[in-house]
Amino acid sequence: MSDKLPCAILGASGYIGQHFARLLADHPWFDTPLLVGTDRSAGKTLEEAWHPAEEPPSALAGERIVEATPARLEKLGVRIVFGAIPSGLAGPIETECVRRGIAVFTNTADHRMEPGVPLLVPEVNADHLGLLPSPGTRAPLVTNPNCTTTGLVLPLAPLLPLLRPEWIAVSSYQALSGAGFPGVASLSVTDNVVPYIPKEEEKVEQEAAYILGSRRGKRVESAAAPFLAQCVRVAVRDGHLEAVTLKARKTPSLEEIVGALEHFDPLRGEGLPTAPRPPILVTRQPDRPQPLRDRWAGTPARARGMAAVVGRIRWQPPYLRFFVLTHNAVRGGAGGSVINAELAYHRGYLAPRGPRKTR
Amino acid sequence: MSDKLPCAILGASGYIGQHFARLLADHPWFDTPLLVGTDRSAGKTLEEAWHPAEEPPSALAGERIVEATPARLEKLGVRIVFGAIPSGLAGPIETECVRRGIAVFTNTADHRMEPGVPLLVPEVNADHLGLLPSPGTRAPLVTNPNCTTTGLVLPLAPLLPLLRPEWIAVSSYQALSGAGFPGVASLSVTDNVVPYIPKEEEKVEQEAAYILGSRRGKRVESAAAPFLAQCVRVAVRDGHLEAVTLKARKTPSLEEIVGALEHFDPLRGEGLPTAPRPPILVTRQPDRPQPLRDRWAGTPARARGMAAVVGRIRWQPPYLRFFVLTHNAVRGGAGGSVINAELAYHRGYLAPRGPRKTR
Amino acid sequence: MSDKLPCAILGASGYIGQHFARLLADHPWFDTPLLVGTDRSAGKTLEEAWHPAEEPPSALAGERIVEATPARLEKLGVRIVFGAIPSGLAGPIETECVRRGIAVFTNTADHRMEPGVPLLVPEVNADHLGLLPSPGTRAPLVTNPNCTTTGLVLPLAPLLPLLRPEWIAVSSYQALSGAGFPGVASLSVTDNVVPYIPKEEEKVEQEAAYILGSRRGKRVESAAAPFLAQCVRVAVRDGHLEAVTLKARKTPSLEEIVGALEHFDPLRGEGLPTAPRPPILVTRQPDRPQPLRDRWAGTPARARGMAAVVGRIRWQPPYLRFFVLTHNAVRGGAGGSVINAELAYHRGYLAPRGPRKTR
Amino acid sequence: MSDKLPCAILGASGYIGQHFARLLADHPWFDTPLLVGTDRSAGKTLEEAWHPAEEPPSALAGERIVEATPARLEKLGVRIVFGAIPSGLAGPIETECVRRGIAVFTNTADHRMEPGVPLLVPEVNADHLGLLPSPGTRAPLVTNPNCTTTGLVLPLAPLLPLLRPEWIAVSSYQALSGAGFPGVASLSVTDNVVPYIPKEEEKVEQEAAYILGSRRGKRVESAAAPFLAQCVRVAVRDGHLEAVTLKARKTPSLEEIVGALEHFDPLRGEGLPTAPRPPILVTRQPDRPQPLRDRWAGTPARARGMAAVVGRIRWQPPYLRFFVLTHNAVRGGAGGSVINAELAYHRGYLAPRGPRKTR
Repeated sequence: MSDKLPCAILGASGYIGQHFARLLADHPWFDTPLLVGTDRSAGKTLEEAWHPAEEPPSALAGERIVEATPARLEKLGVRIVFGAIPSGLAGPIETECVRRGIAVFTNTADHRMEPGVPLLVPEVNADHLGLLPSPGTRAPLVTNPNCTTTGLVLPLAPLLPLLRPEWIAVSSYQALSGAGFPGVASLSVTDNVVPYIPKEEEKVEQEAAYILGSRRGKRVESAAAPFLAQCVRVAVRDGHLEAVTLKARKTPSLEEIVGALEHFDPLRGEGLPTAPRPPILVTRQPDRPQPLRDRWAGTPARARGMAAVVGRIRWQPPYLRFFVLTHNAVRGGAGGSVINAELAYHRGYLAPRGPRKTR
Repeated sequence: MSDKLPCAILGASGYIGQHFARLLADHPWFDTPLLVGTDRSAGKTLEEAWHPAEEPPSALAGERIVEATPARLEKLGVRIVFGAIPSGLAGPIETECVRRGIAVFTNTADHRMEPGVPLLVPEVNADHLGLLPSPGTRAPLVTNPNCTTTGLVLPLAPLLPLLRPEWIAVSSYQALSGAGFPGVASLSVTDNVVPYIPKEEEKVEQEAAYILGSRRGKRVESAAAPFLAQCVRVAVRDGHLEAVTLKARKTPSLEEIVGALEHFDPLRGEGLPTAPRPPILVTRQPDRPQPLRDRWAGTPARARGMAAVVGRIRWQPPYLRFFVLTHNAVRGGAGGSVINAELAYHRGYLAPRGPRKTR
Repeated sequence: MSDKLPCAILGASGYIGQHFARLLADHPWFDTPLLVGTDRSAGKTLEEAWHPAEEPPSALAGERIVEATPARLEKLGVRIVFGAIPSGLAGPIETECVRRGIAVFTNTADHRMEPGVPLLVPEVNADHLGLLPSPGTRAPLVTNPNCTTTGLVLPLAPLLPLLRPEWIAVSSYQALSGAGFPGVASLSVTDNVVPYIPKEEEKVEQEAAYILGSRRGKRVESAAAPFLAQCVRVAVRDGHLEAVTLKARKTPSLEEIVGALEHFDPLRGEGLPTAPRPPILVTRQPDRPQPLRDRWAGTPARARGMAAVVGRIRWQPPYLRFFVLTHNAVRGGAGGSVINAELAYHRGYLAPRGPRKTR
Repeated sequence: MSDKLPCAILGASGYIGQHFARLLADHPWFDTPLLVGTDRSAGKTLEEAWHPAEEPPSALAGERIVEATPARLEKLGVRIVFGAIPSGLAGPIETECVRRGIAVFTNTADHRMEPGVPLLVPEVNADHLGLLPSPGTRAPLVTNPNCTTTGLVLPLAPLLPLLRPEWIAVSSYQALSGAGFPGVASLSVTDNVVPYIPKEEEKVEQEAAYILGSRRGKRVESAAAPFLAQCVRVAVRDGHLEAVTLKARKTPSLEEIVGALEHFDPLRGEGLPTAPRPPILVTRQPDRPQPLRDRWAGTPARARGMAAVVGRIRWQPPYLRFFVLTHNAVRGGAGGSVINAELAYHRGYLAPRGPRKTR
């Protein structure tokens, strides 16, 4: 009998749900996931419902999507759910899971920035896990941020203390899969870009400031520098590109800036299976990062698509400019929640019996 | 016999050259243009060499591309050339045309910001015509800026005095035709965007500051606020979108900002045939401007593709954000030079006998 | 008071409905159309609900979409409805309109090939109007075929008697707008083509044989040669391209074949406002027809997008090959029904008082 | 010291050349390839010159492209060259290599269908190796066919004897990479398809008949059934889709047809490292094969992109229709030549000392 933790994916018929399936199909700590969908998708095999361009995971070949209430999940012994239900529907279901003792790691927005709910990017604000109730008292509910936020806060984490920016402006080039499937109509983006994604700019601005903020006990003080986001959809399948400009209050050298990005590795030593090492890659090629070429960056193999690729760094003090690219559905979606669960597990928030040993 | 001014297009086999052909085929002031190309294209009809998605102008049906030196153009009585030769090659040819008394209005970069050569966007810096030698002393050479610069300076012209920005950041979403034909390889941008266009950011930053600067006699003092550009190629045929963020020193109301854009019409009364009236359209639709839907904005009919469309204006003092869209090959290319020639003609720089009367 | 016929568009919030609006906004015979939509779209202006890349017609500026039952339409004096409701929903509504004396010209599939209902392409089978009940006895219900069928039967109409084919094979390159809006998900076709469009191949094969068949009194005998269709969706906004191969039983010369296509003009003299003259254009350019460049073919101006463009004709007896391109939403959609209504009107099927005179 | 055969890639700066690099970087029989390019690319690392979306092979990291004449290759001990130079340039260089005793396996068209030069697809016409001079007398020169031909002949190999077709019609949906890099201009295919690829249809028709023909001693009698091709470029990065229709003279059951495709495996037992087993996959999914989802089909791992995926088989005797998808740059390009070299090696055409043993 496996001593891996039994888990389930809520929303396994969707684009993010299927990236969860890919990442969890043969996870060393979490057991093969139960694929939970809606009545429309229930009964289909994962292959039949599959949307991403990548192949469905062979370890889940023939596996069918099922319907299941939180009560049913509890009865089946599920200990963790990974959330990929559309925002709006997800909230009450996730709450009910927690009430029944099932830990929730979710990509959906419904509980983001609620009290007691970390908005987590492990490399950036692992200490926000401290917002959770003490281990053993209540099942944890952890959210990951919007996909564009994730790509933004990764390089800013090492840069903020170094530069102490006055403000941070970001323009995005967001991939189609950020809207899920069917998502963006082909007639909307063929020979076009759309300079509007509902509520996206607000999310990026608030979430980035929150994640980069400081935890004071059970609450978070958002970062002071204002974020100024302009979000645009482009005809790219996967991979959000972001053009970042900021005005610094401090003037380190360019070498210090590049070094801060390249040596950033706060999870060193934790051994999280899906954590990219290093989390940030700096490219020197003059026309990179590009979604097509850089979205799958990240080592080891399990962490493909989890690294942020930074390029075209230009430092004309006090202004710093760069581009950053992350795979929105992996690093900014399913992978974000998986690594959150790994961190929570490793730090003892999942099992009352203390952190789990690897293998 | 026509009393229109005889003109020629240099580079009629290229994308911009062909937009010149479209705009000049039946121009009220300038005669049907001579189509000048390279030895590779000479002998082809305009239709055979045609690249834009729009149909070739029927007034030039069957017209063939010819080879012609400046000497030959002079002999043929050509009074104006419109320049669309690739930068690098264009410079000496344009110089030679001027030497032979032929006025040059050019889209190419070779002479931009040279002494005595206005970098002109009529609605923005018509008074830079004053950089030219006095009418009658030398044939004028007038350049229009980079396509991305044009889209940027149009809305900034009315906003600068109102807001007195500390800095202006712009991220671009630039269309394929900005690189001409064949230009961008399809393998470079299918399922991709490319965050690099050689020398583009430098051009935008220097040219915008220059155009928005003040003329002091025969020289220009660039605008003081730094421009911070990040330029990206996207898979759109025509139409450059720009995301603009700036920090203002003054705090007018939103109504004043919108009003300044909508009432901006400095060419009122000049009667330039290709001038859009108004030059700036402000859209209230939440997801506009879009390249596909707004690139052909502009009235009257002759000025289609000449207006700048501004949308998603957000004013959170001191930060202003908006998007602006212009047709890069029309407003930012051929149309820019045509309107420059119209202004110069109207103001008496072309004919020693004084400004031409509009019918 | 206008003596134009009052008409309505059913489905004015959809892609085809809006092409109806474009074509009917200032029609010489039919009055400005009432825009009928669903409860979801009712109340919106046409501009707010607009999907095509072309601008909404200025003659309908500010016009709002309304809800209206057939009973209500009858009360309002509507004499013709143009149908663009999704198949499945349209059938009963169209039947009810006819019952109330309102003529129906529809793009939807529900009544295609029913007894007494012509499946009409005026240049091809105008005599199928004879399937209708006698003028004055019942309001006519006329359908136009599937968009791919229309493009196929236009060139085959003159070729069939000339070549007497044994079989006809067609592979399609179908545009996104063929599926309406939102239609095809961008994730389905970005960097992809999809070799399947539900029920499309069956429709093309049956409808083409029916339209090219012979009317015997009140029924139609389908053409004998089998049609072999393979239908594929490609990432093009508008314009269906079809690759046609057939085996001929007769061996005319290539000149006769081209001549038959170019001289085909069976509606000559009828003066239908939206009829392209000629209906078929043969291009000699080696790489045409192309959707981007040829979809708007057709003269006069009102018939833009109504012509079929044929190219790359290769005749290696007994095998003939060619490509044909038609605008699926115009010639193969809204325009098809408009021209059907014009033909019916002109031939006296609409007004008991006999055919209307053209000014 | 390695006992692998020393080899070189001619044209390593091009798209096909780089797929050669990918496939040969760690090949079990052929040694790490020398990367030969032109003076323009010489000196660059493989990464700097890289075009495909896939990552460059880590085994060649930092490897530089060099210039080298056939004489130089001979001196360096190169035993095999893989040819990916543009047609037209390649011919004399390949001839010179052969003259110097270097075996040539080439993707370029210059020597196709010459006497003594097999046009080879191992699963289809392995016995055409018999066209080569006897082992030991002259270095072999083996060509692989045009990318579209390869995809066509694979499923036809088992079907021809079963169906004895009267004719075979094929319409293609060809990927951008078929034209190499830079290849197709983005302005040519964005919102467009192009129904013309110079000389492609002729190549497909002649090559397919030749490959499926019968070898009689040192010459080949082409297959009798005419091929009728219409070739079209679509906006897909990689993967040629082909719509095939044929008229059969025999009427096996559908099960026999599917079985013939699925059980086709003529290379069983030869142990060629890059051979897909099975070479043809039949998909039952209603909307497959698709370029995006099926181009990388093929097992084992080394044979990814080498299988042909057949789907939507429709058998209405005497007409058979289906779609087939192959990766044009792998199966239809570099991989085709690699498997040809493997076959030739295994069958003793490369080393006078007889076939090499696989570990």
